[in-house]
Amino acid sequence: MAQTSASQKKTSPKKKKTAGKKKALPVSPLAPTEFPEMPEVSGLEIATASTGERYKGRKDLLVAHMPAGTTVAGAFTQSSTASGAVEWCRSNVLSGSPRARVLVVNAGNANAFTGRRGSEAIKAIADGVNDIHGYPKSQIFMSSTGVIGEPLKAAKIVAKLDAKPAKASQARWRDAAEAIRTTDTFAKGCARVAKIEDSEVRIGGIAKGSGMIAPDLATMLAFVFTDAKLPSSVLQALLAVGIRDSFNQITVDSDTSTSDTVLLFATGKCAPHAEITRAGDPRLKDFREKLQEVLEDLAKQIVRDGEGATKFITVRVSGASTARSAKAIALSIANSPLVKTAVAGEDANWGRIVMAVGKAGEPAERDKLQISFGPHLLAEKGQRVAGYDEALVSAYMKNPEIEICVDLGIGSQSAEIWTCDLTHGYISINADYRS
Amino acid sequence: MAQTSASQKKTSPKKKKTAGKKKALPVSPLAPTEFPEMPEVSGLEIATASTGERYKGRKDLLVAHMPAGTTVAGAFTQSSTASGAVEWCRSNVLSGSPRARVLVVNAGNANAFTGRRGSEAIKAIADGVNDIHGYPKSQIFMSSTGVIGEPLKAAKIVAKLDAKPAKASQARWRDAAEAIRTTDTFAKGCARVAKIEDSEVRIGGIAKGSGMIAPDLATMLAFVFTDAKLPSSVLQALLAVGIRDSFNQITVDSDTSTSDTVLLFATGKCAPHAEITRAGDPRLKDFREKLQEVLEDLAKQIVRDGEGATKFITVRVSGASTARSAKAIALSIANSPLVKTAVAGEDANWGRIVMAVGKAGEPAERDKLQISFGPHLLAEKGQRVAGYDEALVSAYMKNPEIEICVDLGIGSQSAEIWTCDLTHGYISINADYRS
Repeated sequence: MAQTSASQKKTSPKKKKTAGKKKALPVSPLAPTEFPEMPEVSGLEIATASTGERYKGRKDLLVAHMPAGTTVAGAFTQSSTASGAVEWCRSNVLSGSPRARVLVVNAGNANAFTGRRGSEAIKAIADGVNDIHGYPKSQIFMSSTGVIGEPLKAAKIVAKLDAKPAKASQARWRDAAEAIRTTDTFAKGCARVAKIEDSEVRIGGIAKGSGMIAPDLATMLAFVFTDAKLPSSVLQALLAVGIRDSFNQITVDSDTSTSDTVLLFATGKCAPHAEITRAGDPRLKDFREKLQEVLEDLAKQIVRDGEGATKFITVRVSGASTARSAKAIALSIANSPLVKTAVAGEDANWGRIVMAVGKAGEPAERDKLQISFGPHLLAEKGQRVAGYDEALVSAYMKNPEIEICVDLGIGSQSAEIWTCDLTHGYISINADYRS
Repeated sequence: MAQTSASQKKTSPKKKKTAGKKKALPVSPLAPTEFPEMPEVSGLEIATASTGERYKGRKDLLVAHMPAGTTVAGAFTQSSTASGAVEWCRSNVLSGSPRARVLVVNAGNANAFTGRRGSEAIKAIADGVNDIHGYPKSQIFMSSTGVIGEPLKAAKIVAKLDAKPAKASQARWRDAAEAIRTTDTFAKGCARVAKIEDSEVRIGGIAKGSGMIAPDLATMLAFVFTDAKLPSSVLQALLAVGIRDSFNQITVDSDTSTSDTVLLFATGKCAPHAEITRAGDPRLKDFREKLQEVLEDLAKQIVRDGEGATKFITVRVSGASTARSAKAIALSIANSPLVKTAVAGEDANWGRIVMAVGKAGEPAERDKLQISFGPHLLAEKGQRVAGYDEALVSAYMKNPEIEICVDLGIGSQSAEIWTCDLTHGYISINADYRS
């Protein structure tokens, strides 16, 4: 626990590094002050365990049980080298009427690019779940996160599949969020209570991810549970829209994982409400909004835990000719190492924004560009604004949250991307993560 | 001179940093041991001067004079926010039968995104050259490199346009290469002597660039002079092919400058040779090869001076379905922060190569991938090879030059990209370059 403590207290900067390769990472300065209050999603039962595999002395296995009839939707990495667990889940989600009884997540080994042995490990875990709990294989969901290319020792996971589940209490939620971490410096959770007609329904989500974050799909892992009673087709439609403005809107380092997964489960165990068959049903308005808040909050928490991050950056591009073009330019800015290092250095270097707009290969006219950092207009019509007060802008750059706004002045479309700065911390974490 | 000394000797690591913002950057550990011998390209005369503008106590202005009849070709940044000097040169190169009398290059201010005042500065410099030397404006070529968004003080440049030129001696070449540097830690030059029939022709080139480097166009600035007698149309064809396998094959940080420019000048003052009217003329074979060597060498020198670089990385992708796809995957690997930091950490983390192949969005099949680091095969058919000796590969990763080879196993097309690692040095240089 000491090595990767996710206690939300800031680690003292004076604290000595642990000897050897496994240094304690200090908690991100952008972390929320505490893990949120989480609701008891009816029907959900959580178990966690230590497999003793990669991480010693901490829980690294989540087994979340759900009642018969639980519906499910999923969104997965676009990577052409997707992991076996992603392929397993995708196949189950794509079945005619997907249902879920259990979610098994292990941290420390992604079981990606492990070939035939990787597939055998997945089969062994599914067999284990089926033997112990009797759930049909089509209702078993799995995620693995961690190092790529190392064969996963399924037996160590199977041995802990009987971990005793209990209702989704605050402590169990916290354990679940802790168990799925790898290089995360804090546990990520978010919850809302929504109304569907007079029925109160609970939505609780957890996520992990800090490096290898980029759209599509940006996530890493996120699992959202609700006790609303909704068919899988409705969940899938809600999730497709939901990730567009949350997980597909973040980038830490433009790298995309082989394991990115978002799953949304609905146990249907809330107080009865009307049967809903369409995602657009007006009675779902509050649920849609609250679900979106959960997805957005979890996505932002991943950026807040961006490896080495010291600044949360919102990039807004407006006045673009198309929405796709706006997003491409926003990503070009958000992924530019020169922009990210300038923000790290608290330098209002808007010349690098101009560069990043230019390199995006999208329609833009130099002499129509307008650039602001927060409330401060720096440049318009192709040049620096008259009376630009560098001292004011420099003071703004010291904030932990920075907004970079670019108006292209050639259309009406816009996009927003959330990212973080690029610091020595990123290099330190990634130059000796595996070896 | 002391602040950005380009002496090719390694700076002692114990040397104290200069106080304040302008620290001396240590010379790249990948720098050539010395500036090369350069030939006296007939007809070329070089002048350099100090404008006293941004860099104090060093030369920051190059004025290269060429005889009447000098032909010219150019290649420029694809950025939609290109600088005024790029637009000026592009317009001159695109004129029916381009000729050049002079090249004026200033370092320290890119005169980019400076709007009307930027255009006025370019006009003022052109007027100054015309007044002092009488060259027609269509034969004046200009480049500016340095900070973006600051208005360029043309008068300081105009005041030095009369700097006394002299034949392209070794000392003058060296001065020229020094004068065009910004964050470069060493002066970059390369030369070859080629034969066109019995006539010996000289090719000499200089370049600058270390950050904001990415294809297309990858350069920064490169200027190549020859005394061969070749029409501009032949030069343009040679340059178009030449940059494809040199400057468009490098990336330091995926960022593209607003000022990237390659110019190729031919004075025609060598001993007479046959009239050549086609780039494919067999009599140009030796010239083509030597020109390519110069372009490739200058491009690699830019990577060797990549900001913070400690490793030169060659990424080779083979077995791709198309050449474009091979290049996209090679760039995805070369630009991945996770791959670049792994190399910096001397970590044979091939899982990150799998990730980078996967995220490229190009045809690839996990179970056909083959990955090698140098002579060491690490993975094939979707998994780690049996008997993989991590100690051997770890020893290989300590080399200053690393080869990453990926065979996709689905086609016959290939691509090669040159890049460098991502280190603390990059962050240090870019988090406080401007402020």
